[in-house]
Amino acid sequence: MKLAKLRERPQRIAVIGFGRFGQFIAKTFQKYGEVVAISRSDYSSEAQQMGVEYHPLSELSSLLPKLDVVVLACSILSFEKTVSTLFKSIPSTTTADLPLVVDVLSVKEHPRRVLLNKIPPHFDILCTHPMFGPESGKNGWSGLNFVYERTRIAGVVDYGTESATASQLKTADTDYAVDRCERFLSIFEEEGCKMVNLSCEAHDTAAANSQFITHLVGRILGRQGLDYTPIDTKGFESVMKLIESTNSDSFDLFYGLYKYNANSMDTILKMKRAMDDVEEGLKIMEREDVNAPGWGGGGMGGEASLLDL
Amino acid sequence: MKLAKLRERPQRIAVIGFGRFGQFIAKTFQKYGEVVAISRSDYSSEAQQMGVEYHPLSELSSLLPKLDVVVLACSILSFEKTVSTLFKSIPSTTTADLPLVVDVLSVKEHPRRVLLNKIPPHFDILCTHPMFGPESGKNGWSGLNFVYERTRIAGVVDYGTESATASQLKTADTDYAVDRCERFLSIFEEEGCKMVNLSCEAHDTAAANSQFITHLVGRILGRQGLDYTPIDTKGFESVMKLIESTNSDSFDLFYGLYKYNANSMDTILKMKRAMDDVEEGLKIMEREDVNAPGWGGGGMGGEASLLDL
Repeated sequence: MKLAKLRERPQRIAVIGFGRFGQFIAKTFQKYGEVVAISRSDYSSEAQQMGVEYHPLSELSSLLPKLDVVVLACSILSFEKTVSTLFKSIPSTTTADLPLVVDVLSVKEHPRRVLLNKIPPHFDILCTHPMFGPESGKNGWSGLNFVYERTRIAGVVDYGTESATASQLKTADTDYAVDRCERFLSIFEEEGCKMVNLSCEAHDTAAANSQFITHLVGRILGRQGLDYTPIDTKGFESVMKLIESTNSDSFDLFYGLYKYNANSMDTILKMKRAMDDVEEGLKIMEREDVNAPGWGGGGMGGEASLLDL
Repeated sequence: MKLAKLRERPQRIAVIGFGRFGQFIAKTFQKYGEVVAISRSDYSSEAQQMGVEYHPLSELSSLLPKLDVVVLACSILSFEKTVSTLFKSIPSTTTADLPLVVDVLSVKEHPRRVLLNKIPPHFDILCTHPMFGPESGKNGWSGLNFVYERTRIAGVVDYGTESATASQLKTADTDYAVDRCERFLSIFEEEGCKMVNLSCEAHDTAAANSQFITHLVGRILGRQGLDYTPIDTKGFESVMKLIESTNSDSFDLFYGLYKYNANSMDTILKMKRAMDDVEEGLKIMEREDVNAPGWGGGGMGGEASLLDL
């Protein structure tokens, strides 16, 4: 009956944290359901402008039974404290009418661990990473990556992975929980996202060697004081674009990607080693290159063995 | 009379060194004049296929009086030796019928110095850097940068800069030399290149902070063994493209950009310092971030002061 009820009315989705990213996703959620904005800072006028129902944080616990989904749209750095604060007043024995809890952080093992450890066991958990934001997603989400792990659905940890589903009998409650989760996921599917079902662990391994390294290089290059020159190559133009896009994000985000992804330190170490290797490669070549003139010198010396005509 | 003669017949342009780049520019030169290929290695069949007259290196000195322009299309590393070898048999007192000598290297102070020091004083010298190659220029040269310095024209060093021209009286020989140089430059103009009249010195300063840093970053990233992941961001895709394009060039070119541009070492040092700065920035933030849990630990501690809702 719960399932039938769910299907006959629009999903009610709360976005907790109504900053730039929260507002960005809320706008699209509005196409698929009723959106409620909840925040500590006063974002009531932003919500009103968007036609979104607004509540201060203090009203969260009374709102919970009326919500299908709670999306935690806070920063990586504040996530653990936010979760503890939000859920501390809810007894761990509560079972009735609890919304699906969704995170949207750019790291995934950290929120997974926090949510599994800190919120009562009857909350369903969906860990996600929409790999886009107000800038990259301003013309729609089509083709953009949406990573998700059904972390705990109807009490089954890692629901949707082979080992987890096989060991579980289906019940009406399971049907309801699964349906609610799939309805929420379908928003991103409908918007044309590339849906990537990936464990939080695999996400963090891949992200350290793609997203984090991109930010790392962008931050390093951003410190060089580079500027466009009259003789830029296409390659350099893409370097400049990289600097602009990574440095327009907050340093807090960069720090979060470093601190809350266990693989990031390894990426930094590998980068430093690679830098040393490249420099060493040049120096070795220089030692072997007896023909290279020193600066200021212009001596020829040696045979024309390098002549490359 | 020399000038009239020059104007009434197509330019005769020799490309010395007929490797991939030499063949690439020769193909376009054919639209504007008669091209002669000259090389040490036997490229006669490549030349024949292109309909280009071919001569072995040994015939160069007898060919010189019949040429308007000699383009030195060898590598940075072999440039100085090549120049010495080519011009050693030509007495420094020769004045008659000497072609304009053009270099096309990706560094500019080095060939400028070599050409001013090593070839007889009656050769005109044009230092250029076509900032494209067989890959980036495969669909034409339109919009691509062509950097040039009229290094020595009709005996005037840095001809075309304000100080150089003002101090010089015009003669018939000057007219001839200038016209020949401009006719050659007009090839790149006709092809739609962005013509950048820049001193060799200014080129090398700008290139160290654009072209060289692009190659440096590409080489460093190329050593990390990065690969596409299921969750690549747009930024990471441009990182991968950077790796591919820079690592498709030879390590010799990268070494040449390093060794023969006096500013490159400074770029490497700045990059290492920036890397250290970024790492230090993260570590400082980590020390101050008393709320950050260690990996494995999950303690909360502290007040919700970072709460960012």
